[in-house]
Amino acid sequence: MTQNIYDDPQFFDGYSRLPRSVGGLAAAPEWPALRAMLPEIRGRRIVDLGCGYGWFCRWAREAGAADVLGVDVSDKMLDRARSALVDPAITYARADLETIELSVNRFDLAYSSLVLHYINDVARLMREVHESLVPGGYLVFSIEHPMFMAPRNAGWKLDAEGHHTWPVDSYLAEGPRTTEWFTPGVIKYHRTLATTLNYMIAAGFTIAHVEEFGPTPEQIAADPTLAKERERPMFLLVSAHR
Amino acid sequence: MTQNIYDDPQFFDGYSRLPRSVGGLAAAPEWPALRAMLPEIRGRRIVDLGCGYGWFCRWAREAGAADVLGVDVSDKMLDRARSALVDPAITYARADLETIELSVNRFDLAYSSLVLHYINDVARLMREVHESLVPGGYLVFSIEHPMFMAPRNAGWKLDAEGHHTWPVDSYLAEGPRTTEWFTPGVIKYHRTLATTLNYMIAAGFTIAHVEEFGPTPEQIAADPTLAKERERPMFLLVSAHR
Repeated sequence: MTQNIYDDPQFFDGYSRLPRSVGGLAAAPEWPALRAMLPEIRGRRIVDLGCGYGWFCRWAREAGAADVLGVDVSDKMLDRARSALVDPAITYARADLETIELSVNRFDLAYSSLVLHYINDVARLMREVHESLVPGGYLVFSIEHPMFMAPRNAGWKLDAEGHHTWPVDSYLAEGPRTTEWFTPGVIKYHRTLATTLNYMIAAGFTIAHVEEFGPTPEQIAADPTLAKERERPMFLLVSAHR
Repeated sequence: MTQNIYDDPQFFDGYSRLPRSVGGLAAAPEWPALRAMLPEIRGRRIVDLGCGYGWFCRWAREAGAADVLGVDVSDKMLDRARSALVDPAITYARADLETIELSVNRFDLAYSSLVLHYINDVARLMREVHESLVPGGYLVFSIEHPMFMAPRNAGWKLDAEGHHTWPVDSYLAEGPRTTEWFTPGVIKYHRTLATTLNYMIAAGFTIAHVEEFGPTPEQIAADPTLAKERERPMFLLVSAHR
């Protein structure tokens, strides 16, 4: 079963103050890149895997989605999503992505933002999502980049010239990584980039586009502390179709 | 035009003493993984892009390939390949992979081992290779892993606990990297893993399998100095089909 850190009061308090929790999609630097990988939204049936506060579900409806299902493991998150907007074409449901069962041939797009690195059995989830899509349907998701997740003690180091470097180790040692993020003991699952893609291919997906995301020059100009994030990618963005 | 380091006497002398130059495919730790990604060889028409001494061309013939074309930028390498075996079904030809023009619908398999990271315009080469394959034909290649190539000053560092780490920087700064390898001024072209895959997809390929290679437990048992190579992948292996 997925660890439900979101219902931990200390975690939820910290998480709810994140720029992207307060400001939604516009506050997420990778959102324009992820949005560019989405297929047409108008008229489409969409599932958001790990919908959190429902920012994407609401955006998709504004963009003309026919119906949107947002699933999340956290009742607290779903409560916040439900209280933000009542829309009969948006349904929120509690589900664990380790065991979720989706209707077959039901969706045109499955979307997931920064959630799948918390899931242990992603191979199973990929098969489940593939079956839930109509032929030609899309899966578009972001995760923490495996280079970011791999190290035993992840963090920047300065080299002899004072440049930021990101020491990588344990990259080929797949499995859980326990980190502190607002609260100790947050468990993520490290997989190589290759493994994530191979699970998708094995489930029947055709890879359409891969992006190793770092902030754009415009984003760095607006916030120069982001410059070092181009030394190694923060996020992995992938689109694929059935 | 591709830099032809292989015809530099100092480089050629060093290169010719490498285990894989002396021992061929069996001396390359990634060969079993790359071989496992190959389609059926028997009866197939094959091109080896950057064939070097011709080890793969000869292996493919022994495995029953109908005909094999080995291309390389280095006359010295081609001379060695030609002198190793005379086989009317193996043709060696000098060509620069930056500008090579291949016959359309000619091959069942295009293969390339540790060469494409020397090529600047890989997007063009992917299109050229795609057109040279029959429908359903395969491209299988290895390159240095972009995590290996990216850093300004690539090399191992020991962390505070004495573990090997591989400091990554400049990963999102694509372009030439000048390194010393038997001779100074060897130019490689760094691309992100995503860019390599996206060039393939844009050329029309369907990605079939991706492997970020590190030595196996058996290989480490035979040569314990290889253990650190699992901290970050040495090579990227990709198979795709038209």
